[in-house]
Amino acid sequence: MTGTLYGLGVGPGDPELITVKALRLLQTAPVIAYPAPESGESLARSIVAPHLNGMATEVPIRMPMLTARFPAEEVYDWAVGELGAHLEAGRDVAVLCEGDPFFYGSFMYLFARMAERHRVEVVPGVSSLTACAAALGAPLASRNDVLTVIPAPLPEAELKARLAGVEAAAIIKVGRHFEKLRRLLSELGLAEHARYIEHATMASQRILPLDAVEPAGVPYFSMILVHKRGAAWK
Amino acid sequence: MTGTLYGLGVGPGDPELITVKALRLLQTAPVIAYPAPESGESLARSIVAPHLNGMATEVPIRMPMLTARFPAEEVYDWAVGELGAHLEAGRDVAVLCEGDPFFYGSFMYLFARMAERHRVEVVPGVSSLTACAAALGAPLASRNDVLTVIPAPLPEAELKARLAGVEAAAIIKVGRHFEKLRRLLSELGLAEHARYIEHATMASQRILPLDAVEPAGVPYFSMILVHKRGAAWK
Repeated sequence: MTGTLYGLGVGPGDPELITVKALRLLQTAPVIAYPAPESGESLARSIVAPHLNGMATEVPIRMPMLTARFPAEEVYDWAVGELGAHLEAGRDVAVLCEGDPFFYGSFMYLFARMAERHRVEVVPGVSSLTACAAALGAPLASRNDVLTVIPAPLPEAELKARLAGVEAAAIIKVGRHFEKLRRLLSELGLAEHARYIEHATMASQRILPLDAVEPAGVPYFSMILVHKRGAAWK
Repeated sequence: MTGTLYGLGVGPGDPELITVKALRLLQTAPVIAYPAPESGESLARSIVAPHLNGMATEVPIRMPMLTARFPAEEVYDWAVGELGAHLEAGRDVAVLCEGDPFFYGSFMYLFARMAERHRVEVVPGVSSLTACAAALGAPLASRNDVLTVIPAPLPEAELKARLAGVEAAAIIKVGRHFEKLRRLLSELGLAEHARYIEHATMASQRILPLDAVEPAGVPYFSMILVHKRGAAWK
């Protein structure tokens, strides 16, 4: 009897926005693993910290800073060996994933390496996409709007082309790309239909019009929502 | 002290995919309301049925069949009066929403009518979008892919134009539009990168390649996921 690898969506930040299913698996899995920086605390682990009962073996998957976005092969090779050994010994492993595992999550790198040899189940979670809309108090998309999710690191020309045609958009991974996006949205006449949200549903949540944002302070986990059909914000 | 109107995302179908927060509010709100057909059971209510404790006053919001998509003004006017009276009497009201309230949900119609006069809080839920990807066992979008969410009722020419440029797409509200979509995806060379999912996370869940789907049986709550970068399915 080998174990199951669970990709566990733990939600956007508020510990109460974990699902009942993910909470059950979190509290019963003999092994939990989570992405973490080279030193310091894991965001995914901190989201579920109030729910941990200290029963599980913990496996932090520590990413060197420079390669955090497109992660180092060798770290994943190590993680596959580590988690694979637990699975082969019959122990289930729950990998904690911020938001939802399959919505731009780094879980895909483990999934791609482990799904052929092991039983894998993904438990969907509340994604940052809907959490930001709830925090903002405005529908993401309505009726037959097309909703486009656009990663901010794309080249400027592609961003502009994509944004030009949108009815509703979520720009993700904003971070150091904020200034460029503010300029593009302004050029396209979309600035007044856009709002900036960081750390949605966490204690540190902030929602701002674009011109009130200090670009140097924009974290990676931030989003700009645009909804042309929605009323322009004041 | 007036009450709060909660838009409660109850998740995609599996009762365990409700969040801890939504479950708490569901079990403590003195009034729960939910969309329902003209006669018969409410899908949103059926999702949470195992969690109900019989303590709440229930208010079904019954929609005449023909106008279920762009709903009848008079039904919402009635609901605003009904729910507003509870709120003004100091009773919180939880409106049950399939998936997430602000991801193409009908909650927006109540929100638009009630948010100015009442305190409203949206509790985000697991959307059908990530639930379908989890059920399928394939990332929705990865790295810097643009993800496009496309409602199937759009005119054919617009569907074709939108689909032509996609890297990853989720086509929602498929229902009676399936045949048209299958043809378009085939013309665009995307059929082998597409999968059909109905009733994700429910007991009746089905996942099929497009050519195995019987168009007459496709429900409104179904989705086609396309991911060009993902490997083509067999």
